Amino acid sequence: MSYNIFISLGMVVNWVLDQDELASKFNSKTKAIIINTPNNPIGKVFTRSELQVIADLCIKHDVLCFSDEVYEWLIYRGHEHVKIATLPGMWDRTITIGSAGKTFSVTGWKLGWSIGPEHLVKHLQTVMQNTLYACATPLQEAVARGLLHDFELMEQPDCYFSSLAVELQGKRDRLACILQQAGMSPVVPEGGYFMIVDVTALNQDLSHMEEDKPYDYKFVEWMIKEKKLAAIPVTAFCGDESRKQFEKYIRLCFIKQDSTLDAAATILKNWSKA
Amino acid sequence: MSYNIFISLGMVVNWVLDQDELASKFNSKTKAIIINTPNNPIGKVFTRSELQVIADLCIKHDVLCFSDEVYEWLIYRGHEHVKIATLPGMWDRTITIGSAGKTFSVTGWKLGWSIGPEHLVKHLQTVMQNTLYACATPLQEAVARGLLHDFELMEQPDCYFSSLAVELQGKRDRLACILQQAGMSPVVPEGGYFMIVDVTALNQDLSHMEEDKPYDYKFVEWMIKEKKLAAIPVTAFCGDESRKQFEKYIRLCFIKQDSTLDAAATILKNWSKA
Repeated sequence: MSYNIFISLGMVVNWVLDQDELASKFNSKTKAIIINTPNNPIGKVFTRSELQVIADLCIKHDVLCFSDEVYEWLIYRGHEHVKIATLPGMWDRTITIGSAGKTFSVTGWKLGWSIGPEHLVKHLQTVMQNTLYACATPLQEAVARGLLHDFELMEQPDCYFSSLAVELQGKRDRLACILQQAGMSPVVPEGGYFMIVDVTALNQDLSHMEEDKPYDYKFVEWMIKEKKLAAIPVTAFCGDESRKQFEKYIRLCFIKQDSTLDAAATILKNWSKA
Repeated sequence: MSYNIFISLGMVVNWVLDQDELASKFNSKTKAIIINTPNNPIGKVFTRSELQVIADLCIKHDVLCFSDEVYEWLIYRGHEHVKIATLPGMWDRTITIGSAGKTFSVTGWKLGWSIGPEHLVKHLQTVMQNTLYACATPLQEAVARGLLHDFELMEQPDCYFSSLAVELQGKRDRLACILQQAGMSPVVPEGGYFMIVDVTALNQDLSHMEEDKPYDYKFVEWMIKEKKLAAIPVTAFCGDESRKQFEKYIRLCFIKQDSTLDAAATILKNWSKA
């Protein structure tokens, strides 16, 4: 038996799930699908009906689902986070992955969790026991207390789960505005704290740089050196098939101090003057 | 090329390295040896001349050495910890493994380090980057400060590196004494915080327990239930070849509060009365 056939569902075409394309990837050898919502890097939050399409395929082909939902609380107005494990028939075949680092803005703590039925989680426990063995226990204690604390505050304005998204929505909107004014085309994210931006309109000539890298890698390298503004090339997230579609995108992060966003605004305002 | 031929040097016969047996295990397929000094569970600290024998074999057969030295500071009077990497010709072929958990008694922190030449460590970095990715950064900061702090106190009585061993030596001697008085035969460790004990003399009849486990597993299970004293079966550390030699040994831990050792003493004093 082969268990190494996975579909990784990170990218979507036109930000909408192409149902036919996805269905065409399933066959009798398919064992699992990996999904990520809210999605890094594109900021898409999969809709309930898109997730239902994925669930239907999982059930039809008897496939497991690994659902990376580490940005589950960072959802912006007008969007809803749906756990695919809550759709009918999915609990028994889904492992949902969460992150203390993303939930509480402590990414250096390297803690998270997997939620699923006992018959799946017991295998994760075996892997855990024989690889990591244990996580940092004082940090686990702190995370447990944090979860209890904010669970009790749920629905209240100072519950960290929701207040962080409220705070970040302002930063998101500000960064999108700054980028548009600089002539770039941001894709305003529905969730998460990253924003991808189409830099095509800048028409930046990078022909003097070495040839064997995708345009976004060269652009980011040039921007860090020349503009002192850091970003991540989006094709770093792409497989061979989708690379060409994303070569003109870079990923910016907006979970930053306002003073850092101010500095970015200044750089972008003076972009064409340098 | 096969890189999966390792020799694991955990056990020794009569607590002295059998040089001929070890030499007989090396051949043209041998890629690496794993050593552990101070040794868990037997408490042996390998002597400089024993390590020289191992080093000579490594050099002769062009073999890498992974040296697990996590108990490096827990060395008792009359013994010396030697890093095999410091022997001539060994630096370039040795990865030395250390542990913040063992060094600072914070085993729940799950932090440690590997020391070696760049041409070996760079491969560990690749594995690290693609598995753990990062360790818990606040705890790394604390460990770094701890290392600096106690490095500055080196050779002084309140340097934790050495003061812990001084404190534990008293506990070691006390536990050995208690065990002897109870009719058991402890192997007094030269390093580390475990003590293995031969329970043969107790002649404990365990024939009523299920048959398919080694004697030490049954003994420990029985002791926990009937005597409320916990230990680890030593054959848990053994390969098939050495299991028979260690079936009458259990491993006790003496890095305990004095009140816990008092409780153990009481249990052992009343051992035959129960």
